[in-house]
Amino acid sequence: MGEQRIGFLGPKGTFTKMAVDALFDGGTFVSYESIPACLDAVENGDVQTGVVPLENAIEGSVHLTIDYLVHQVDQSIIAELTVPIKQHLLVHPNQKNQPIERIYSHSHAIAQCHQYLHKHYPEAEIEYTASTGRAAEIVAEQGPGIAAIGNHLAAEENGLTIIDTNIHDYDNNHTRFAVVQKQPETLKVKDHPVSTQKTTVMVTLPKDYVGALHQVLAAFAWRKMNLSKIESRPMKTGLGNYFFLIDVDQPYDQVLFPGVQAELSALGCELKVLGTYPSYQIDVPTPVEKA
Amino acid sequence: MGEQRIGFLGPKGTFTKMAVDALFDGGTFVSYESIPACLDAVENGDVQTGVVPLENAIEGSVHLTIDYLVHQVDQSIIAELTVPIKQHLLVHPNQKNQPIERIYSHSHAIAQCHQYLHKHYPEAEIEYTASTGRAAEIVAEQGPGIAAIGNHLAAEENGLTIIDTNIHDYDNNHTRFAVVQKQPETLKVKDHPVSTQKTTVMVTLPKDYVGALHQVLAAFAWRKMNLSKIESRPMKTGLGNYFFLIDVDQPYDQVLFPGVQAELSALGCELKVLGTYPSYQIDVPTPVEKA
Repeated sequence: MGEQRIGFLGPKGTFTKMAVDALFDGGTFVSYESIPACLDAVENGDVQTGVVPLENAIEGSVHLTIDYLVHQVDQSIIAELTVPIKQHLLVHPNQKNQPIERIYSHSHAIAQCHQYLHKHYPEAEIEYTASTGRAAEIVAEQGPGIAAIGNHLAAEENGLTIIDTNIHDYDNNHTRFAVVQKQPETLKVKDHPVSTQKTTVMVTLPKDYVGALHQVLAAFAWRKMNLSKIESRPMKTGLGNYFFLIDVDQPYDQVLFPGVQAELSALGCELKVLGTYPSYQIDVPTPVEKA
Repeated sequence: MGEQRIGFLGPKGTFTKMAVDALFDGGTFVSYESIPACLDAVENGDVQTGVVPLENAIEGSVHLTIDYLVHQVDQSIIAELTVPIKQHLLVHPNQKNQPIERIYSHSHAIAQCHQYLHKHYPEAEIEYTASTGRAAEIVAEQGPGIAAIGNHLAAEENGLTIIDTNIHDYDNNHTRFAVVQKQPETLKVKDHPVSTQKTTVMVTLPKDYVGALHQVLAAFAWRKMNLSKIESRPMKTGLGNYFFLIDVDQPYDQVLFPGVQAELSALGCELKVLGTYPSYQIDVPTPVEKA
């Protein structure tokens, strides 16, 4: 095995990059500008491993990741990372006591700090940018009198000063990332606690009939298999056709899962395993404010 | 009842505005820059009605809408709209045969047209903007030699020419919008077919126990109530606590729903009705290309 090449949804200073830096122990990191571009790179072999947002992400469309994994590529989820979302207020290092006239960030980050902005900067103009990383770049280029909302990596990479930390309105916001590979290989990761082993399956129903999902879940329930997430998603074949994404809180095994599969198959459903993997919880320390 | 005031997630030329124009029969339309700002305006009474993306939207974070409706405001969903997502390639009216060197759009729109761009404009630089509307504005300002990806409204509002229609990689992509009010009043809407009557409920479990969701769904299943969508969402009180959003394919009634509620209550679950409403399907004609 040569050096690991890891693709991620960029650019620099994103939450995805923060997760990648925290997880992997060495390797070459390659930034991609969109989720499909990153997953295509895994598919083509340009990188062995890809990291894309799976849930609640600032930068990426989560549904896009799921739909692309299900419809476009043949890859497995081999790990997941959860990273707390901590937003900070970033200014130019030359900022003194000038009023902050404009605040830049991605629309999702602005929305996450809605109450903070309303309370502390009601007069500031809000400018929307394509990413939190881009907002930080703008502040670095334009100088004092403006601010960006972003994470501590965006501050570091652009030489900005953090004047207020954890300005997001709610705690307990996490972004969840999927680590995917075409041919599952061992990852070289830093020493992180694994919170749980999970298996993600996709279940498709033959057609939309009353109580179908209830029957599907029964196959898991009587085996005492705990489900930590369930979501229905429309198939691309038309309205009214759904598939279900289900996270089971245990690793794939040769007894329970084949049993579920046989039972669902008898109901006319199809079960596909999208991955069985460790879940890493990455902590992000709150940086020190420079008031 | 005076003239209806309708707030929506702006700016001009968005898919949200397209839905609003198609649905409402008159009224004053007020653009808001974020989902929380729009829902706050409904809460404060600045507008009676708000329209925000609920699922699969280009511009908005869907989870944000749900979380804000659940945690921050006391409003009901009184209608939903589904609108097909049709992306087009927009150029300046003075564009002749110049090569298109850069293509601008929101990252989600770029991702939706990933294969098209790869095939037809492999050499073009991609520039990410805060919205598809902003991308169209840039083309209007900067002139020929560049293009934007956006909808036909963005073309109209910015005086651009559509040179290629329906360039999104997949059909059957829809955006779903919620129409919300604090005190449900009648809407003045154009004559649209109502595809179905729905009820959206939120179910919270006392704690994460094996098979809980299965028991919850049993309460609906044995009453032959069809569920068209189900999604688990983390509570903001910490990891591991979930609530479920469930769309039931029928209007609220005084027999079945109270029965479900009593049964869930006996299990220690709580059921809250977020709205019972008509679902409008809005069609968007494909504009004529000017090659």
